Amino acid sequence: MKKLKRSARLVEMTQYLLDRPHTLISLTAFAERYQSAKSSISEDLAIIKEVFEDEGIGELHTLAGAAGGVRFIPKCRKEQALRKIEDVCSMLEQPDRLLPGGYLYMTDLLGQPGLLQDLGRMFATAFAERDIDVIMTVETKGIPLAHAASQYLNVPVVIVRRDHKVTEGSVVSINYVSGSTKRIQTMSLARRALKEQSRVLIIDDFMKAGGTIQGMVDLLSEFRAIVAGVGVLVESGEVDNEERLLHDYISLARLTEVDLKTRHIAVQPGNFFQP
Amino acid sequence: MKKLKRSARLVEMTQYLLDRPHTLISLTAFAERYQSAKSSISEDLAIIKEVFEDEGIGELHTLAGAAGGVRFIPKCRKEQALRKIEDVCSMLEQPDRLLPGGYLYMTDLLGQPGLLQDLGRMFATAFAERDIDVIMTVETKGIPLAHAASQYLNVPVVIVRRDHKVTEGSVVSINYVSGSTKRIQTMSLARRALKEQSRVLIIDDFMKAGGTIQGMVDLLSEFRAIVAGVGVLVESGEVDNEERLLHDYISLARLTEVDLKTRHIAVQPGNFFQP
Repeated sequence: MKKLKRSARLVEMTQYLLDRPHTLISLTAFAERYQSAKSSISEDLAIIKEVFEDEGIGELHTLAGAAGGVRFIPKCRKEQALRKIEDVCSMLEQPDRLLPGGYLYMTDLLGQPGLLQDLGRMFATAFAERDIDVIMTVETKGIPLAHAASQYLNVPVVIVRRDHKVTEGSVVSINYVSGSTKRIQTMSLARRALKEQSRVLIIDDFMKAGGTIQGMVDLLSEFRAIVAGVGVLVESGEVDNEERLLHDYISLARLTEVDLKTRHIAVQPGNFFQP
Repeated sequence: MKKLKRSARLVEMTQYLLDRPHTLISLTAFAERYQSAKSSISEDLAIIKEVFEDEGIGELHTLAGAAGGVRFIPKCRKEQALRKIEDVCSMLEQPDRLLPGGYLYMTDLLGQPGLLQDLGRMFATAFAERDIDVIMTVETKGIPLAHAASQYLNVPVVIVRRDHKVTEGSVVSINYVSGSTKRIQTMSLARRALKEQSRVLIIDDFMKAGGTIQGMVDLLSEFRAIVAGVGVLVESGEVDNEERLLHDYISLARLTEVDLKTRHIAVQPGNFFQP
């Protein structure tokens, strides 16, 4: 790479760091990349750190010493995130989202790249300190959320299938009972998808009683993997605590009321925003 | 936003632009955001433009005049992209990827956030000038690729389902014949997912004869939408041109040989890389 002036180097370093979240980059590597003294690199990093922290982009963690370097941890600020979630709640309250059975149409929201990035950053903030190795979700609607979080946590995604596809090779399958419908269903994951002892973050779009997520927890125990966290976009508040199978999770929004007759829907920010 | 020094402003503007690809941002908006003269902003943009172009991050298009501004178009450089695709080809050639029926296991690659971003940038480069309104894919393995491209083209994703889920509302379904297996299958898309006259980019992970993609093309005609492009990660080269249903597409890689007996797999860069 050709030698850059400080102004150009700041632009390049900014995009380099943004592209590599949760990755330790040594000062030596930066100094070589930019053919600059470590002291100059340190000054640049101080400028970037201040902007990232002031603007709610994330944190730059500096490690001193011979093995030292810098690590970019994407984070959102709670008050900025809350404003975005309040917008999501208003969108979810539109009466024409109500589908037969009291389900909400939210596929359109899960297709918007800007919104997905915001939601991914919220999950990445909630689970930044949990040492996540891999994110797991179940097809289909959890996938965009899982990938959005994966990008900011910089870990791979594995997708649990509801069917058994030929293109997965040998799989581990389990049966689970969907908490709300009480039906027995099957989910499976390719045997080679997950290493033993992996620390897994489970992400899904919607949780009622938690049967599907409990299924994923059971599947993880088949792989001797560890549940390091559970995050859902919307939890249904219409489930009482005794019915709920799962208690330790982060929700970004909470569906508190669905009235099929009046078509009234109420959605509030989830437990991620509780003080 | 507080007034920043030039160095801090460059950091902030870089991340602001990277976060908003294919979006026109007026000089006035930037000048107000940073409480700076438009002439200073123009100088900053010239620095960013040079770095983005030198490093193969993308282009900054400047529009002059009262309605003028700047637009960041993510692009990759062909020679950088080719090196990455050659890595992907080598990974796909590992004999243990071979599954019964001559399929290749590639789910692991489609879970890697860094690789997905590279692939998304390649699709975004190939289709940058096609005025894409929306990206369409079919569940399940195309979804991560579609979302990766969506992020760089800044357009939403719609997902075609192979089943009919209650949480989609009314759907349009079609039958199609999978080109390789000759079986009749069904795919469906929520009626509200797509506007008439939308310009649609179809993305999928794998194409053999093209039956599934032809199904999506037929589905689009039901919505009176326009096929603005077709991109696949891997095309099978084991199909002769007469058998192929589809001829206008971009592939990033091409599977040229699968020998079930010797377990030999050969994968080459796709037509995106042809001169």
